[in-house]
Formats: sequence, C-alpha cells, structure tokens
Amino acid sequence: MSHALRGMRLAVLGPISWPTPPPGYGPWEQIASNIATGMSARGLDVTLFATGNSHAPVKISAVVPVGLEEDRGLNADVYSALHIGKLFERAGEFDLIHNNFDWKPLTYALATTAPPMVTTIHGFSSPSILAAYYAAAARSFYCSISDADRDPGLAYLATTYNGIDPAQWTFRAEPGKDLVFLARFHPEKGAHLAIAIAKKAGVRLKMAAIPQDEAYFKELVEPHIDGDQIQFLGHVKGTARDELLGTALALVHMTTRPERFGLTMIEAMACGTPVLGADMGSIPEIVVDGTTGYLCRDVDEAAARVPQLAQLSRHACRRHVETAFSTERMIDRYCDAYTEALRLRLPIPATESQQTWRAHDWWDRPMAYTDIPAKPEHYAFTP
Amino acid sequence: MSHALRGMRLAVLGPISWPTPPPGYGPWEQIASNIATGMSARGLDVTLFATGNSHAPVKISAVVPVGLEEDRGLNADVYSALHIGKLFERAGEFDLIHNNFDWKPLTYALATTAPPMVTTIHGFSSPSILAAYYAAAARSFYCSISDADRDPGLAYLATTYNGIDPAQWTFRAEPGKDLVFLARFHPEKGAHLAIAIAKKAGVRLKMAAIPQDEAYFKELVEPHIDGDQIQFLGHVKGTARDELLGTALALVHMTTRPERFGLTMIEAMACGTPVLGADMGSIPEIVVDGTTGYLCRDVDEAAARVPQLAQLSRHACRRHVETAFSTERMIDRYCDAYTEALRLRLPIPATESQQTWRAHDWWDRPMAYTDIPAKPEHYAFTP
Repeated sequence: MSHALRGMRLAVLGPISWPTPPPGYGPWEQIASNIATGMSARGLDVTLFATGNSHAPVKISAVVPVGLEEDRGLNADVYSALHIGKLFERAGEFDLIHNNFDWKPLTYALATTAPPMVTTIHGFSSPSILAAYYAAAARSFYCSISDADRDPGLAYLATTYNGIDPAQWTFRAEPGKDLVFLARFHPEKGAHLAIAIAKKAGVRLKMAAIPQDEAYFKELVEPHIDGDQIQFLGHVKGTARDELLGTALALVHMTTRPERFGLTMIEAMACGTPVLGADMGSIPEIVVDGTTGYLCRDVDEAAARVPQLAQLSRHACRRHVETAFSTERMIDRYCDAYTEALRLRLPIPATESQQTWRAHDWWDRPMAYTDIPAKPEHYAFTP
Repeated sequence: MSHALRGMRLAVLGPISWPTPPPGYGPWEQIASNIATGMSARGLDVTLFATGNSHAPVKISAVVPVGLEEDRGLNADVYSALHIGKLFERAGEFDLIHNNFDWKPLTYALATTAPPMVTTIHGFSSPSILAAYYAAAARSFYCSISDADRDPGLAYLATTYNGIDPAQWTFRAEPGKDLVFLARFHPEKGAHLAIAIAKKAGVRLKMAAIPQDEAYFKELVEPHIDGDQIQFLGHVKGTARDELLGTALALVHMTTRPERFGLTMIEAMACGTPVLGADMGSIPEIVVDGTTGYLCRDVDEAAARVPQLAQLSRHACRRHVETAFSTERMIDRYCDAYTEALRLRLPIPATESQQTWRAHDWWDRPMAYTDIPAKPEHYAFTP
C-alpha cells in the first residue's frame, strides 16, 4: 500500500495554535506531526502547513511565525485564514490534501476542484459547525476517529483511529492494586461514577486531572476525597503519568456521554493496564471486553468486575496497542484512506437516509451533544 | 462606459449581518444594495450574495436565511465562511467579483485564479487585518472610499466615493441659525470641539447621537449641555434627521483623527447645509472649501468662519452632491473601476516604496490608528 503512494505529493494542513509538534498541550498538532513524519518515512513527498517555529523532517510552509496561543497579539482569525488560504493557493502542487484543521478549510475547498482532499474530523466542537461539513460533503472525504463518532448525516471514507508510539510508555507486567481516573473533571467523564465503583468494590481510587467543571468538582467529587481511599493527585504528566497508569489495577473510564476516541485508554493499555470502561461511544472499539478490560453498563456491573481485573493479561493489553493503536497502524490506515481517495477522486455521495439526517440536522439528533441551542423558526430554509 | 459592460456577469458579495438592503442600521449592506441595483440598471447581469431575506431586482444567492444579527443562534463564523465559499465555488460563472465583505474573501481568492476581483475597503476595523490585504495584493484590486483612507503599503485601482440618492433628502434654500453635530460620541468625532466652536461663536449647537464612548461623553460633553445653547437631542433618524440637517446653519465635523469618508457630510450638503469640517482625512475631498463649507485647522479658525456660513450658496451644496456624490456617480466610478480591472486582469504590483511600507507594517505607521498593540519581538519574520 505504501509502495503505491511513494513519491505522492501530500499537503498536511495542521492547526496553528501551537508549533508542530507541540512542546506541551496540543493534541491536533501532535497528530499532524505524527502523520507528516510517518508519511515521510513511507516515502511520500510531504509538505506540512504549520507555524514557522515547527520542526519536522519534511518541507514546512508557514505564514504565522509562532503559535497563536503563544502570541495573543496575532489576530487569530486573520492568520488562520491566511494559513488555510496559503495551502489552497498552492493546491495544484499536491496530489492530495489532508486537512487536520477542523471545518474552515472545507469552505476554501469549495473554491478549488483539485486535488482530492481528506479531512479528519477530530471532533465536533459544536453542532453548529456541522453545516460546513454538510456543505462540503461532495468536495472532501471524511475520516472519523472512531466508528461511534460518526455524524449520521455524513458519508465517511474510513475510521482512522489515533495511534501512539508504544515505546514511549513503560510496560509493567505486575498488576497494581488501585483504580486510576485520568480525565477532565466534567460530568461526561464520569469521575463520580469512578468514585462510586471504588467505594462499592472496596479498593483505592487515584484521580489525576485539572477540574474543568468547578461546580461539578465541588459538588460530586471533592466531598469524597479523603486522601486515603479516594485520592486526588492534581495534574499529573510526563513520567509521573506513565508511572500512575502503569502501576494501576485498571483505568476507570465510565463516561456518561459517548467518547469520540479516548487517548488515555490506549496509553493505559500500552503500560499493560486494562480499562474498566462504559459500554458506549468509542470504548467498545478500543477495549476488547474480557481481554483488555471490561465494558460495563453501570456502577454495579463495573464494581462486580473489579475482583477479576488482576486476572486479565497485561501482555494482551500491550499487544493490543502495538497491533491496533500504534502510530504505524494509524499511518497504515491513512495510507489506505489516501489510496481510496485517489481512486475515487470525489467522495461517495451520502445515502438517502443520510440526506434525511441532514434535513433533520442536529436539532433532532437523539444524543451526544450537550449544547444544542433552540431550533429557530426559520429553520425550514434550504440553501 | 456602461455600454461596454452591458451583459457582464457580476457577482456582488455583500455582508450578512443584516438583509440587503438593511431595514435599519447596516451601512455596508446598504452600499452592496446600491451597487447591485445600480449595476443591474446599467445592464449588467448581477448576482448578489446576501441573506435569504434580502430583496433586490437581481439574482440573489444565499446560504444563510436571515441576518446574523437577526438570529444570534446562527454560527456567524460558519455561515460567513459558507457565504464566501459559495461565491468562490461559483467563481467560474462570473466575469468579475466585487467584494464588499471585508478581508476574509481575500483569503479565499488566493485559492482561485479567475475572474478578476475588486475589493472595496470600507474601512480597516483593526490594523491587524492589513496582513490579509497585503497577502492578497496580487490577487484583488483595491478601491478606497477616499484618497485619504489609503494604506501606504497597498496599490489601489481607484477611489470610489460612496453615493446617496439626493432625492431622498429635502433641499431647503433658507439657511438655519444653529450648528448641528451628528455623529457618534467618541473623541475622534470631536463633539467637544463642536461645543467649543459654538460657545466661541455665540451660536446654538444641537447634538444628535448615541453616546458610544460613555466616559468621554460624561467628562467632555455632558457638563456643557444646558438645553439652550448646547442641546442634546438623543438619537435622531428618518424625517427628523432630514429636518435637523436641513434647517441647520452648518454641520460641524471637526474630527480628531482622519475620517475615512463621512456620509453625514454629503447628507447635510444634499439638504443644502454646508460643512464646517476639519482639514484632515477625507474631509478636504468632500467639502469644497469656501463653496460648500470651510476647512479648519482648529477651534479658533472654525469659530471665525461661523459668521460667513450663511453667505455660502445652499444650492451649490446640493449641486455638489448631485454631481459628485450621488449613487449614480458612485456607479459610474465602479463602472470605470470594473473596466480597468477587466483590462488589467491582475492588480498592478505595489511600488518599491509601498513594499517598504509593508515591511514597516502598521507598527511604524505615523498616524491614523488608535488600537495598535505592542510590536512583538518576532516581527522580523517574513512569510
């Protein structure tokens, strides 16, 4: 597959909040970096559109000197537009464009017919951006980061799971004794459920995160923190994160709304640590039930699984990441997606049922979004 | 001129904050409406890109049902981008694009080579948007709305003054006795200078506006309001505005920073009322010194002119608007600009001195802008 793509001129459009790769936070920049570097290693002729202070073993095209988050004096609107405009100005120089910069580039793609474009939908920040994805559905191929995170109104080319480098995580063969929670403190991440599970099962829970939803944290999390059974470690990163994940009995990931992907789960499994996860969203795609963790529907089910966790093979967890969720496997998936995009040239039209979803749009969506505004009266308008 | 353009397929890109034309406020929408309607009357084949609830005797293309200011539930970013993207998707259907929607469309124009594009720079909302104008200087022709409002780093195709329909303003041959101030209460509009002039000349001043800068209003304007010599009428519009302007001795327009154009001045002159204006910015281009008003450098000079105002010909003021600042004359100017753009196809490159200005950029600009942020250290970066 990669052989056929050798020499292909690929434009990777990354975000510009941070340099690529980012020195700290910056998940999308990190993925753009992994893709650019990985594709270059497969012999593709890669140009990365990123900030001027980015570093990659590929050609870098930049219109903004540093990340927009690094210098708030830069007009983010203007420089984002120029960053995208610069790529499309040069569109004729590439065989394929891989967009990792959300919905805005789709509206520019409407202005140009060549070359084929693949857009990874890293997440719908708000349902109101769906209008852009629908408008450009005949122009860009879409990749989802899990089967679960697909919008019913869109046709997708592929699911391209994110990948990590397993070598950057320490495998530990011996199971730990404590559960660990490692996510934002927000109701959707289910810290309150992790606490309930630990209490019911009679084991210790170590929580690491920054409180995102302060009210939630104060009401449903903080009262349970006793420094013994329920511990709060604050924000944990780097080697401390590696050790926290690797020395745990399991990562508890009992989300209350569908997870899009869930990078922490594959980081835990890379350390050999299984996942006690909610049976919803992307989790059933990432955790092999009974092998690399357990899929649970509620607190009782999860608490009942706790005594069995130490019997799961930590080697199996590690192997699962190496075979299914490594960076190399992610690059394989994108190579497949690129090949298919080059073969088809233009996206497969949405099915009639998908068109119907679009007519409904997100106001009638059964689940998944928390910030849907009221449906305006003029909504019958069709462009 | 208009004969040669008959049948030309023109795309007019308007803003979408309000319908075109706007029911109330919406100056750019109003100009887009005047251009679309005026060009259609000259025989051009016009398509207006505006909101779905716009009305014009031309083809209307819309992706957003109502104005973004009319329904805050619409995602302004997404719909602005789709609105612009829709035009560029159809770019091949037009002989010329006339952009009246600020800088964002310029970044889309980079992605498409045809057809020629004319952009009216209605104003630089912030110096930070200049980066977009520089980046697209080889792609779009620029029109300024006065000679004074030109950025020294840009090459311009023409100055295309705004126009009004004189028939919509009542001419009054008899000069009034009071000065009038009709602008935002902001230091740059010089209400405090108008007060000083009225006091010094011993005449009445009627002020109409909404306080924009509250602190300025409270400190430098309000203490002088006595309900007799210095009167404050609040926000005045419609026929009351026509009467206020028409029954005045003169409009005082002593700005403290360069005016870009100044629609109120031509409205006053259409009523027959001369202008007592600052000798800076666009005012010397709009007011004929000694004929339709006086250009003054300070309060003393302006106060000394007050006794002479009644001797100016109010007919001359009206005629000046009819000949130089009517909608028809504006359409003439744009016809000339379109003809030149079609002849040249691509903009004239900026001169070496203009390139130098760009290198300086706005941090070293000698005047005109009030909100220049600190110059970042990495500014030496050149894309």
